[in-house]
Amino acid sequence: MNRGGAEREGDTESKAGSRLRAVSTEPDHTDPDYSAAYVVLETDVEDGFKGYGITFTLGKGTEVVACAVNALAHHVLNKDLGDIVGDFRGFYRQLTSDGQLRWIGPEKGVVHLATAAVLNAVWDLWAKQEGKPLWKLLVDMDPRMLLSCIDFRYITDVLTEEEAYGILQKGQIGKKERERQMLMHGYPAYTTSCAWLGYSDDTLKQLCTEALQDGWTRFKVKVGADLQDDIRRCRLIRNMIGPEKTLMMDANQRWDVPEAIEWMSKLAEFKPLWIEEPTSPDDILGHATISKALVPLGIGVATGEQCHNRVIFKQLLQAKALQFLQIDSCRLGSVNENLSVLLMAKKFEIPVCPHAGGVGLCELVQHLIIFDFISVSASLKNRMCEYVDHLHEHFRYPVTIKKASYMPPKDAGYSTEMKEESVKKHQYPDGEVWKKLLAAQNN
Amino acid sequence: MNRGGAEREGDTESKAGSRLRAVSTEPDHTDPDYSAAYVVLETDVEDGFKGYGITFTLGKGTEVVACAVNALAHHVLNKDLGDIVGDFRGFYRQLTSDGQLRWIGPEKGVVHLATAAVLNAVWDLWAKQEGKPLWKLLVDMDPRMLLSCIDFRYITDVLTEEEAYGILQKGQIGKKERERQMLMHGYPAYTTSCAWLGYSDDTLKQLCTEALQDGWTRFKVKVGADLQDDIRRCRLIRNMIGPEKTLMMDANQRWDVPEAIEWMSKLAEFKPLWIEEPTSPDDILGHATISKALVPLGIGVATGEQCHNRVIFKQLLQAKALQFLQIDSCRLGSVNENLSVLLMAKKFEIPVCPHAGGVGLCELVQHLIIFDFISVSASLKNRMCEYVDHLHEHFRYPVTIKKASYMPPKDAGYSTEMKEESVKKHQYPDGEVWKKLLAAQNN
Repeated sequence: MNRGGAEREGDTESKAGSRLRAVSTEPDHTDPDYSAAYVVLETDVEDGFKGYGITFTLGKGTEVVACAVNALAHHVLNKDLGDIVGDFRGFYRQLTSDGQLRWIGPEKGVVHLATAAVLNAVWDLWAKQEGKPLWKLLVDMDPRMLLSCIDFRYITDVLTEEEAYGILQKGQIGKKERERQMLMHGYPAYTTSCAWLGYSDDTLKQLCTEALQDGWTRFKVKVGADLQDDIRRCRLIRNMIGPEKTLMMDANQRWDVPEAIEWMSKLAEFKPLWIEEPTSPDDILGHATISKALVPLGIGVATGEQCHNRVIFKQLLQAKALQFLQIDSCRLGSVNENLSVLLMAKKFEIPVCPHAGGVGLCELVQHLIIFDFISVSASLKNRMCEYVDHLHEHFRYPVTIKKASYMPPKDAGYSTEMKEESVKKHQYPDGEVWKKLLAAQNN
Repeated sequence: MNRGGAEREGDTESKAGSRLRAVSTEPDHTDPDYSAAYVVLETDVEDGFKGYGITFTLGKGTEVVACAVNALAHHVLNKDLGDIVGDFRGFYRQLTSDGQLRWIGPEKGVVHLATAAVLNAVWDLWAKQEGKPLWKLLVDMDPRMLLSCIDFRYITDVLTEEEAYGILQKGQIGKKERERQMLMHGYPAYTTSCAWLGYSDDTLKQLCTEALQDGWTRFKVKVGADLQDDIRRCRLIRNMIGPEKTLMMDANQRWDVPEAIEWMSKLAEFKPLWIEEPTSPDDILGHATISKALVPLGIGVATGEQCHNRVIFKQLLQAKALQFLQIDSCRLGSVNENLSVLLMAKKFEIPVCPHAGGVGLCELVQHLIIFDFISVSASLKNRMCEYVDHLHEHFRYPVTIKKASYMPPKDAGYSTEMKEESVKKHQYPDGEVWKKLLAAQNN
């Protein structure tokens, strides 16, 4: 995949603390102030392409992720892109199993978020050099090449490379038609912008009315802080959208296992398709218990935005702990690890409904889910991608939503690149936004 | 527990990168070069006591942990120790559920290692101000007060506060006698210093002979890199120690699930008591599968040194995935979270055999396991604490091993304090050791 075998040197630069304001509140994340670690890979190739990688946080913590990016940087600096993607599995393993850094993970938390940022930049660069949007790079890629990007370590008891090959081979059938379908109609989305916690009736009504006018048919409500308030907001929204449209609920890890079952039993009358993150993201068996109790009430369990790696996803699938699987392009080890999760989900026939929002997540995950439909799942049943309407203005290739669907990006790359002026303005600590904030703090 | 209600202000200082050399190799951690983040809490109380907290890494990564310590520091700076320990559960929750930082965890990886370092310092300070070694502070503490240090969030489906209270009440019976027993004979230990990977027959024989002469009766061998080499070393050691003494094996996460079962079936003839970390530390169901296959061969599964929080331990117990539970005082959220794990292990009657080694881990975990015996488990059956013979010379209150047992520390505190000259020499980047290293790198 190396164009003309030219030598390429990478130069990683991490820009921490781009502070992007967005209004949203969640039961367990009450004061988010989105921020992102932004990795820029430069090369010595004449094409001048750069790879941009991102992972966001809720504010504090980006400086820690940036520190981890720097600790990983030596793995990518002065490497040839052709060598990296020629043994992408090996390169992934190098980053995630660094003999010393692995101790502070492995493959979880800060160091894995940093891995995502670095690898997202590599994928962006690769797609740009191939002149394709990332989803198309994946769709066109030979199945064996695709598999060579995946580290199957710790998941072979559930998915071997040969089984994965079988899935991808089967996915070739009807691929062209599904690609046409995507280009024509896009991938169905749902909106989380209507019903954050703490909104008044009037705000809810107004946002909901607007969303209905814009063609949205699937809505997510945040729950878990106060049962009576949840009942009020869920009733209002269900009444607004009518019985046919889809309602989902999201508790952002608020409950213990017994509490999750009890609370959701009381919200069952509003017919939610799923309850998202009912408890600790680490609690596979807890999610299984909750699923077992709620599925008979018609409520599925959804989780994944804080599942830290493929080993957790593997077990959630094994334990029948979820009915909807939510990948995240900035928490897992980039496209490489997400590919393994898409394939495992396919094996278990569990629909993937990506997590989006944050900073740039919509821009990234759309590529993965469009690839998933065209080459892996071949189905839209019970599938949709989250959409949150904020911070897109900072991206050079923002998402295009038409009739409540993600339209496939046409520009080359992974849509990770931010606008120069946004980066300049929000860069820590020298950006204009930060200078003002820091000056205000000092006064 | 606040002595005289005096105002205490904490001043956190994190010292990153104390670089302590020790020779050890593990299958998946091939080039460790121990390093530690070291937190010092100073107060404005006349007693002049300082709290020292530590968490180590295998080298690179300590700078990332130190960065996370700084991100957490505002939670402890200028706080009153009495207020902290008066609502220790609340303080623990404040650190682990910081509305923004929780995104880069929660309760796992870098940010949780940093939490451990900060809280270890608080416990050291508290024990010093009470004039007791930490184990004794715990043993003498009223059960209700002990429970008020524990965050039961996400574990109430397995252990409620009332159940935990019942366990502690039962633990009061015979406590005095067990304390006398500990002071007289100490807590049984095993050694990992004899059989790291790559040792020649001669080295193995010599180390083993010396260990036998020193009274050691329990030995751990590193396995998983090469089956034939494992057979050679296991045979040699089993022959040296005879059939009655205890042999354990440690694979440091080397295998996938099917491989673990296959490999260990071939080492079963050497009668290991346990196989430690056969696969990914996140793979609860994988460990359960391995346990199910190996227990009939007389081999238990041990894990825990990289279990990142109580939610994972809860599930390992629920799933019958381990026969030996290995707590770690620097990876879990300090004493607070370890208390919850000790209590859950007691409920499931699974023996706790702490992980030690690294930097200062022996010094710390001895306190926890001595408390466990006196106040919780009341049993030594199948129980022992790891011992690794390195880096103790850097500690002000190093462990005392007598007849292969940890003798209870008598000095006040958590034994976390390092010698001033060691810190000075190894501090990054100004310590003598680092100056030399950095100069050599630049030449």
